[in-house]
Amino acid sequence: MAILEEFGHLFRPSCIAVVGASATSVSGGNRFIRHLRNFGYAGRVVPIHPTAPEVEGLSACKSLADVPEAVDYAYVAVAARNAPDVLRSGRGKVRFAQVMSSGFGETGGGASLERELAAAAREAGVRLIGPNCLGVYSPAGRVTFTEKTQPEAGPVGIVCQSGGLGIDIIRRGQSRGLRYSGLVTIGNAADVAASELIEYFLEDDNTRVIGLYLESTREGRRLFDVLRRAKARKPVVLLKGGRTSQGQRAAASHTGALAGSQRAWDALGRQTGTPMVDTLDEFLDALATLQCLAPRATASTRAVLFGNGGGTSVLGSDAFDRAGFSIAAFDAATLQQLEAFELPAGSSVANPIDVPAGALQQDEGRVAERIIATVAASSHADALVIHVNMTVILGFRHVDMLGNIIRAVLRVRESDRSGLHVALVLRSDGDAETEQRKRDYCAQAMASGVPVFDELAQAARGLAALRTIEAHRARLAAPAH
Amino acid sequence: MAILEEFGHLFRPSCIAVVGASATSVSGGNRFIRHLRNFGYAGRVVPIHPTAPEVEGLSACKSLADVPEAVDYAYVAVAARNAPDVLRSGRGKVRFAQVMSSGFGETGGGASLERELAAAAREAGVRLIGPNCLGVYSPAGRVTFTEKTQPEAGPVGIVCQSGGLGIDIIRRGQSRGLRYSGLVTIGNAADVAASELIEYFLEDDNTRVIGLYLESTREGRRLFDVLRRAKARKPVVLLKGGRTSQGQRAAASHTGALAGSQRAWDALGRQTGTPMVDTLDEFLDALATLQCLAPRATASTRAVLFGNGGGTSVLGSDAFDRAGFSIAAFDAATLQQLEAFELPAGSSVANPIDVPAGALQQDEGRVAERIIATVAASSHADALVIHVNMTVILGFRHVDMLGNIIRAVLRVRESDRSGLHVALVLRSDGDAETEQRKRDYCAQAMASGVPVFDELAQAARGLAALRTIEAHRARLAAPAH
Repeated sequence: MAILEEFGHLFRPSCIAVVGASATSVSGGNRFIRHLRNFGYAGRVVPIHPTAPEVEGLSACKSLADVPEAVDYAYVAVAARNAPDVLRSGRGKVRFAQVMSSGFGETGGGASLERELAAAAREAGVRLIGPNCLGVYSPAGRVTFTEKTQPEAGPVGIVCQSGGLGIDIIRRGQSRGLRYSGLVTIGNAADVAASELIEYFLEDDNTRVIGLYLESTREGRRLFDVLRRAKARKPVVLLKGGRTSQGQRAAASHTGALAGSQRAWDALGRQTGTPMVDTLDEFLDALATLQCLAPRATASTRAVLFGNGGGTSVLGSDAFDRAGFSIAAFDAATLQQLEAFELPAGSSVANPIDVPAGALQQDEGRVAERIIATVAASSHADALVIHVNMTVILGFRHVDMLGNIIRAVLRVRESDRSGLHVALVLRSDGDAETEQRKRDYCAQAMASGVPVFDELAQAARGLAALRTIEAHRARLAAPAH
Repeated sequence: MAILEEFGHLFRPSCIAVVGASATSVSGGNRFIRHLRNFGYAGRVVPIHPTAPEVEGLSACKSLADVPEAVDYAYVAVAARNAPDVLRSGRGKVRFAQVMSSGFGETGGGASLERELAAAAREAGVRLIGPNCLGVYSPAGRVTFTEKTQPEAGPVGIVCQSGGLGIDIIRRGQSRGLRYSGLVTIGNAADVAASELIEYFLEDDNTRVIGLYLESTREGRRLFDVLRRAKARKPVVLLKGGRTSQGQRAAASHTGALAGSQRAWDALGRQTGTPMVDTLDEFLDALATLQCLAPRATASTRAVLFGNGGGTSVLGSDAFDRAGFSIAAFDAATLQQLEAFELPAGSSVANPIDVPAGALQQDEGRVAERIIATVAASSHADALVIHVNMTVILGFRHVDMLGNIIRAVLRVRESDRSGLHVALVLRSDGDAETEQRKRDYCAQAMASGVPVFDELAQAARGLAALRTIEAHRARLAAPAH
């Protein structure tokens, strides 16, 4: 596919030019070069500097035109007024130029400068990303624009209109086990827009899930068409900034977003089966769900909750009820099997299943495994959500109860043929020690394909996003009336 | 006040008896004795044991009747069927007995046993807490039922129908800087019910804010009356479990909650000006707000957002819009002052104020202080919410930017006469190092009376709870029509 080849140069560039690194101080360009080095970028990096022969220990060229080879990716961080000339100097040489600089359409007087920038790119045959953005993150290409990024690639591709949120998505996401195939911050999106990158991620075999943060678009119809085509193949989640009138006003001064019709966005979500979320954490919850769980052929509506904590079970039932799930009571046969385990007083084997921590430690966690296996085999549930109060569980120091539960989930899942979605809620008290254990268990579970959430309410939202996608696919698969 | 004296014995007991500690193994009673010891409880602890002369290194008595002095608080963890006899043996000796055991009204056959338990308590002149709960936490009395609890007391009093959630409220709350005057888990509340403990907290000078987790009540009218009286004096927040029909069903098997009318609870909240929240984290957000910020005489509706991150500002504006706040544009005079600071390209001094991290480090954080001071002095805002992307800010390692911002907030607040609410949002990437810094800064800010939140959406909800209370007080203060 042409788009795979074209954008492959962006995600796996052989030569990167950096315009705006300083020979005497530490600017954004210098930090970018250092990030590339730390991340293990193996291609050629060429600083562009009008006078200095060397920048950050690398031989510099005076201009993009002077670079002796093709530049796949030019990182441009110069004053806005100089950016069009930089692009002109890349004519016939540069494939992608990402302009970080602010001061374009998002400011009062910058709209014409943005038009000039886009025209300069077009005339020079350079694909422009931005302006007013931060960079590209590509583990496979060892490209990054922020420090401490995860080198391990994964199935989630991101298009993000905000640079800062892009950093949050990478960093907060990787802390909770999300792994990316790539992320591009597109800022004002004067040339390369969301739909084109979505098309790339749809074609890219390394990407299974697509996440979007958008504040505006100038290509409503095209976006709609791409998303509609996407649904039959890869789940897409949309975090839309500026869905309220006051948020819209803030977006106008952030990325020059025009006041779009909220109803049009709602229709886009509804008609393309794209779950729309309102906060960064909901976005990451949905992506974690979709990274781990493959959509079923019909919408998942029946949930079973299982864990330690009666109040938590009650509030969790409320959350799943609000998210549109049924927490139906078990049938007599299932109930009988669960009752045969003779759980201690204080347990409840109805749905939600509430078992004191003490019972979960019995027999090295095999009680938990039997409960999980019974739910998988007999309950006709679509989703099983296991929640553990880490504070209470970690009080039993002589048993690796959490490890046992995670291993039980994995064993049951191996033999399960029902396609049951299994999710884990690790409820922490925020203590440093508990948080460290939580990070470890979260990494272990997510790497094994079990999505992990902070609370049952978050799990309910993540699974609701998955259900939106399942319901849309089921509608597409249904014979026409 | 009689109630202060009566319940003073519960929160600051001189003598505690423990029924159900083992001489040969480690039961809940043994763990309770160890928790008391670790927490520095200074009174007398008397294990009750039929045969052993000593339990946990303490001289035991054969029965509550044999304890040579008055027992302020008896911790009772025995099989449910034996609990009534334990209470009978405490006649004339025990002031409060808290029955941890399950197997009462929350189970199919346990309702009559619960009636027997309540009758036994009444006849023995013992005030009964529970059954089906976990204990009392009182920093002033050095009483606790879970490990690693904070000895520092604070202004928040809690009544919690769930034992496990009680642990969560203590532990997760203290991690984020909440400090408690006391917490009582009341379980099935067969005798001492929420309203009586609310009355105690209303009279207790150490308590300024009251938090409730309730699933049900048998004393609807009394609860209503107490809450209505409370509002003129101390803010109350209610986390109601079982507000949905499926949550209600789960509550029935948790604390024997009867199917109550959801409309009655809604009316209770509305007519008493009690903010009602849906999740544990929203509850803690509201309590953190109320621990730090005193309600103003009129409802706070105008918010200013200030921080680094354009996308975050947009999503934050959406969240504040949804929570019913105005993020109004500044007037010309305020705008002029902010523009005079000549912030770099990429800044926006409209409301929300969006300033790149680089600008916040200038001049040792004085730019931030000038912005905060200008908002406090000229913007007519009710609330200023400062958000920092810790990942980005901590990238500038040579400046203590976060410390500078917190100090700036404290300095501005000292000279502010407008009563401006100031809140801080510390946006973390979940990395171990960032989280440790966040805990440190959170402790510092909360101890100084600045509430701290994870995200702008959470700050919006916390401030909305405060606004509910302010609006109710304003209505009460308004002259009758």
